[in-house]
Amino acid sequence: MTSVNNDVTLENWQQAPYSRWGFWHLEELVPCATIAGGQGLADRTTLPSLAGIIPDLDSRLEESFTDALVVLHGGEVVHEQYFGEGGIGQRHVLMSVSKSLGALVIGRLVQRGLIDPAQSISHYLPELSDGAYGDATVQQTLDMTVAVRYREEYWASDSEVQVQDRVAGWRERLDGDPADTYEFLKTLKHDGTHGQVFRYVSANTDVLAWVIERVTGQSYVDGLSTELWSLISPELDATITVEPSGFAFANGGIACTARDLANVGALMLRNGMTADGPVIPAQWIADTQRGGDRQAAAGSVFQQVHPNGSYRNQWWVTGDDRGSYYAAGIHGQFLWIDPSTQTIIVKFSSWPESIAEKWTRFHAALFEEIALAVSAK
Amino acid sequence: MTSVNNDVTLENWQQAPYSRWGFWHLEELVPCATIAGGQGLADRTTLPSLAGIIPDLDSRLEESFTDALVVLHGGEVVHEQYFGEGGIGQRHVLMSVSKSLGALVIGRLVQRGLIDPAQSISHYLPELSDGAYGDATVQQTLDMTVAVRYREEYWASDSEVQVQDRVAGWRERLDGDPADTYEFLKTLKHDGTHGQVFRYVSANTDVLAWVIERVTGQSYVDGLSTELWSLISPELDATITVEPSGFAFANGGIACTARDLANVGALMLRNGMTADGPVIPAQWIADTQRGGDRQAAAGSVFQQVHPNGSYRNQWWVTGDDRGSYYAAGIHGQFLWIDPSTQTIIVKFSSWPESIAEKWTRFHAALFEEIALAVSAK
Repeated sequence: MTSVNNDVTLENWQQAPYSRWGFWHLEELVPCATIAGGQGLADRTTLPSLAGIIPDLDSRLEESFTDALVVLHGGEVVHEQYFGEGGIGQRHVLMSVSKSLGALVIGRLVQRGLIDPAQSISHYLPELSDGAYGDATVQQTLDMTVAVRYREEYWASDSEVQVQDRVAGWRERLDGDPADTYEFLKTLKHDGTHGQVFRYVSANTDVLAWVIERVTGQSYVDGLSTELWSLISPELDATITVEPSGFAFANGGIACTARDLANVGALMLRNGMTADGPVIPAQWIADTQRGGDRQAAAGSVFQQVHPNGSYRNQWWVTGDDRGSYYAAGIHGQFLWIDPSTQTIIVKFSSWPESIAEKWTRFHAALFEEIALAVSAK
Repeated sequence: MTSVNNDVTLENWQQAPYSRWGFWHLEELVPCATIAGGQGLADRTTLPSLAGIIPDLDSRLEESFTDALVVLHGGEVVHEQYFGEGGIGQRHVLMSVSKSLGALVIGRLVQRGLIDPAQSISHYLPELSDGAYGDATVQQTLDMTVAVRYREEYWASDSEVQVQDRVAGWRERLDGDPADTYEFLKTLKHDGTHGQVFRYVSANTDVLAWVIERVTGQSYVDGLSTELWSLISPELDATITVEPSGFAFANGGIACTARDLANVGALMLRNGMTADGPVIPAQWIADTQRGGDRQAAAGSVFQQVHPNGSYRNQWWVTGDDRGSYYAAGIHGQFLWIDPSTQTIIVKFSSWPESIAEKWTRFHAALFEEIALAVSAK
C-alpha cells in the first residue's frame, strides 16, 4: 500500500530507508512496460458479432480511430473487437472516464457519512480556503459548477490544463511550474459565483481525489483499489499515473482493459450490486442517472447534441428517453450505459482531435444503433 | 505489443498518430501506480512454517532487511512471509536477478539456432564493431569475461553504472549523458583481452538484450513476454522499467512477485519442463549449472565465499557439493536453487549496502540451513 505524500524520490529510492518502499513500488518512480504473462486472458477470442448487423460498422469504427469496442447485453459480452495496437488483456488510458470512476468512490464515502456533498471543500481541505474551492461545495465540484478561473484548452501551453499535465508528468516540466498538484490546486482563483454555470474543469476531480485522501487517510490509489477495483472482480489490475509527490492523476490517468470498464457499467446497471453485496450505493447511482442542472449546462456543446443533457456526479447524462448516461474522455474514450435495453458499450479511440462536436454526435448515434440492435437480436 | 525503437515520446504521445501506441502504453511513458484488483491473490494467506525450525529465523530476517521470503520444496510452497511494505501479489524489483531471467531467453534462442554463443557480438550488432564488444563473443558476454572499461561502482556518480542508471531513468539525467542505452553501449571501450578475467559488468546484459531484439525483431519486453513469462503460468504479469527510447532496463529493471520468481526456480529444477512441454532447454540449464571458468573468477569476492564458484550464463554457480546456484541482485535479491534437496528460496531485501561480502556469506549459510531443514521435515 502506498502512503500519502511519501518521501521517496527518484534520487533516494535506492537508498535505505527509502528503498523499503521504493523496491516494492518501482513502477511509481520509473515508467515500466508490462511483461505479459497471459494468465488465461490470451486464450480468449474476440467476438465481433455485430459486424453484419450494424451497417458499415467496420468503416465507421475505422474512421473514428477505434482502438477497442466491447458491448455487453444482459451482462453478457456480445461484441468484442480490438484495432491497431490493442488487444485482449491490454490496458488503455481512460482520460476523463477516470473522473467518473473516482466519483463512484465518493458515492461510497457519502453513504458511509465520511463525505457530505453539501459541505464546502474547505471543510475537508483547509489548504484550499483562500482559493476558488474555499466556498465551493462537494456537490458543485462533482457537478462542475464551480466558478474557477481555469482554461480547459488542451492545445494551449499556458492553459491550466496543460500546467496540470506537466505537473503530473504527462508532459515535460517547464520552469516555474508548481511543485506538485497539491500546490497547483492552491493557485486556482474564483471567477464568478458557484453553482450557476456548468464549466468543465478537470481540476475539480483532483480536488475530489484530495478530499478522498483526507477523509480516508490513504492515498487516492489505495482508495480506488479498496473502494472500487478490489470489489468488482476485474480481469486485471488497473493503473493510474503518479507524479513525484505520489499524487495520482485523478482527472485522467487511469488505464484498464475494455472488459473491466464494461463491467463497471454492468455494475451500474445492477444498481451497484454484486454477489458479495452492494458496491456502489443504489441511491448514488439513481442520483447520478437522474442528471444535474440542465439550465446550468445551457449553451454547452454537450447540449447541442443532447438538448436535455446535464452533468451529474462526474457523469454525462443525456436526458434522452432511453435514460442513457455515460463517461467520456478526450480522444474518444466512452463507457455508455443504456438502461432501457440493458446495454453497455465501451469504446476506446485515438482521434486526432481532443474533443469535437462531430464526434459527440457521431458516437451518440452509433451507440444508440448498437443498443437497439443488440436488444432486438 | 511494443515496437522496437518506437517514435513515441512524452511530448507527442497524446497526438495522432503517436497516440495509437501511446494510449495503450501509458505505463511506459509516465510512472504508474497499480490499482490492485485482487483477482484471488488477496485470499491467499502467508505460511511462515519455518519459524520454529530455523534458529532465530525472525531476527535473522529482520537484521538482513528482508522484504519477502518464499521457500518451495518439491514444488510446493513451504514458507511464505512478507515484511515492511511487502505482501502477497506485490511486485518487488529484482535488480540483477533480471540478468539471470534474460539469459533464459538467450537459451531458447540458442536452441532455435537464432543465436550462436561462439559468434561475436558484432555479428549481430554491427553498431558495436568499434567498441569493446566488437570481438567479444556472446558466450563471453554471458559469462562476464568481456574486457571492457566499465566501473560497476554503484556509489560513484561518474561510474559507468551510474551513467546507465541515469540513461535508464533510474536517476535524474545529467547534461552530457548519452541519449539512450543504445548510444551508451557504443561508447564502451576495450580494456585488455576478452575471455580471461571475470568482471561483473552490468552492461553485458543490456548488450545481450539488444542481441535478442535484433534476432527476434521484437522489443526486449516482448521477448521476455513471449519467450518466458507467458509460458510459465505466472500469478501476475511482471514489469520492467523502460527509458524514453523504448529500451527496457535488462540488467536490473524487472519486478515480479516472490512466488512467480520462485516458480522460475522450480522450472529450472524440472529441467525447464512444463505440462505444455519444455520452456527452457534442459541442455542450457545443465550448461549453466555446470558453471563457468573458475580460474577467471579467481580473487573475486564471490570466490572468497564460494571457493569453487564461477559465473555462467548470467547465473552464480557456487561449486559446492550440493550443486547450488543462484541469481542475485544488489541490496539483497536472491533466487537460490538447491538441486540436491529440490529446494527453491526467494528472498527480497532492502539492505543499506548495495553489495557486501558479509551478506553473501550470511545468505549462503542461511539458505543452506533452510534447504537442509525443509528436506529433513
